[in-house]
Amino acid sequence: MSTRLFERVALIGFGLIGSSLARVLRRDSPQTVIVACARSAETLETVRRLGLADETSADPASAVVGADLVVIATPLSAYGEIARRIAPALREGAIVTDVGSVKGAAIAALRPELPSRVHFVPGHPVAGTEHSGPEAGFAELFQDRWATMEAERHDKVLAVTSHLPHLIAYTIVGTATELGQDLQSEVVAFSAGGFRDFTRIAASDPVMWRDIFLENREAVLELLQRFSEDLTALQRAIRRGDGETLHKWFTRTRAIRRSIIEAKQA
Amino acid sequence: MSTRLFERVALIGFGLIGSSLARVLRRDSPQTVIVACARSAETLETVRRLGLADETSADPASAVVGADLVVIATPLSAYGEIARRIAPALREGAIVTDVGSVKGAAIAALRPELPSRVHFVPGHPVAGTEHSGPEAGFAELFQDRWATMEAERHDKVLAVTSHLPHLIAYTIVGTATELGQDLQSEVVAFSAGGFRDFTRIAASDPVMWRDIFLENREAVLELLQRFSEDLTALQRAIRRGDGETLHKWFTRTRAIRRSIIEAKQA
Repeated sequence: MSTRLFERVALIGFGLIGSSLARVLRRDSPQTVIVACARSAETLETVRRLGLADETSADPASAVVGADLVVIATPLSAYGEIARRIAPALREGAIVTDVGSVKGAAIAALRPELPSRVHFVPGHPVAGTEHSGPEAGFAELFQDRWATMEAERHDKVLAVTSHLPHLIAYTIVGTATELGQDLQSEVVAFSAGGFRDFTRIAASDPVMWRDIFLENREAVLELLQRFSEDLTALQRAIRRGDGETLHKWFTRTRAIRRSIIEAKQA
Repeated sequence: MSTRLFERVALIGFGLIGSSLARVLRRDSPQTVIVACARSAETLETVRRLGLADETSADPASAVVGADLVVIATPLSAYGEIARRIAPALREGAIVTDVGSVKGAAIAALRPELPSRVHFVPGHPVAGTEHSGPEAGFAELFQDRWATMEAERHDKVLAVTSHLPHLIAYTIVGTATELGQDLQSEVVAFSAGGFRDFTRIAASDPVMWRDIFLENREAVLELLQRFSEDLTALQRAIRRGDGETLHKWFTRTRAIRRSIIEAKQA
């Protein structure tokens, strides 16, 4: 498939997501002009070395000039400032989208700043790995990923499926590192059993995740409260030797996994 | 490699671990006679259908007669009863081992019951998947897995690397299922982002894990307390909009992942 949906695409932020998008464009729409925008000179140098863009710029306003598609793919805390800077430079009829994991906050930061002559389409690829930066991207990242729903609902669903699991993983890996130094080396050596999955999740980009938790605060805190209550109930069952409560709980969660596997196969 | 370390091996309990051991023996020591022992007629029927044993028995005492190696691979709560039943039937000089995830409890349950004419060698393969039963086993399960350490230390390390992560995963998947039914279907559909790893872990065998938490109670509760304190600190930072604390924490956990990857490569 070789198409050209867009003539000129400005990618603001060029980490895992931005650079994966560039790779998709290179593969599927080779005639599209790609403009990469990043704050750091090091990132832009990497982009040039990898040949992932036709033009590079550290200034968002210059980057979007003439672009018919603008993708904002930075941490959420940069959105407001970027929108203010690109607003006067945006071309009539351009599509402006973003990839942020908290849609309520993304819309609140972008919509008031963007001029009425552009089309604002909030987005979220629901894709990622624990790696970050322009070298971490790959064209297949977005395959079979999709999310279409209203912002508030999106943020609640993502709080469950992504934000809380990341917070828990960050917590538990941090807790483990506080143990004595000699125990820690064995924890690293035996990290196969469950803990390794957590360390992978807890290796995700710190700035991006700081912003997500701050911006999706209400949904995350509400969920965290429920989680803590449930954990306390299980803790109480362990302390009292109440095997029946544990067994009942674990049997129920096993059924969830089956429904997920069946949903994927359907 | 075709060797015969043992003439006759009795596998008491024939789930993921027991059936994987049988597969290894079949592959590497085809002349060894394998005796499978399980409580349920259905499991024994499956063993016969898969051809994983030369003899099957529902009675542990009959199963161990003449065996030079006896492997106990049931949930921990069955250990005491099994030891009492096999004790009079064990052959002089037999090696008796187990695969339980809590060594303190395993030793406490087995050692007092076993006669002095056998060699008791507590073991733990530190291997597994979320699947259970005789059909879930595979010969490669134990490749590159090992654990050699003193029981109390083992139980502390495993509490961090395996037991607490499982408890947390069980909790969070349970919390998610308590959400409204319509939200739940979307959680299932978008389970890609972090949550899916948790549902896999939370699909592990309920009886085995009930026993692990009850038997490693002290280490799990001590760790759970630290974890809760850490989670509360992060929750507080989110509520107060304290991005610096979050960023510092997430940067530290990212470094742990790197040290694990480097340890694996070294």
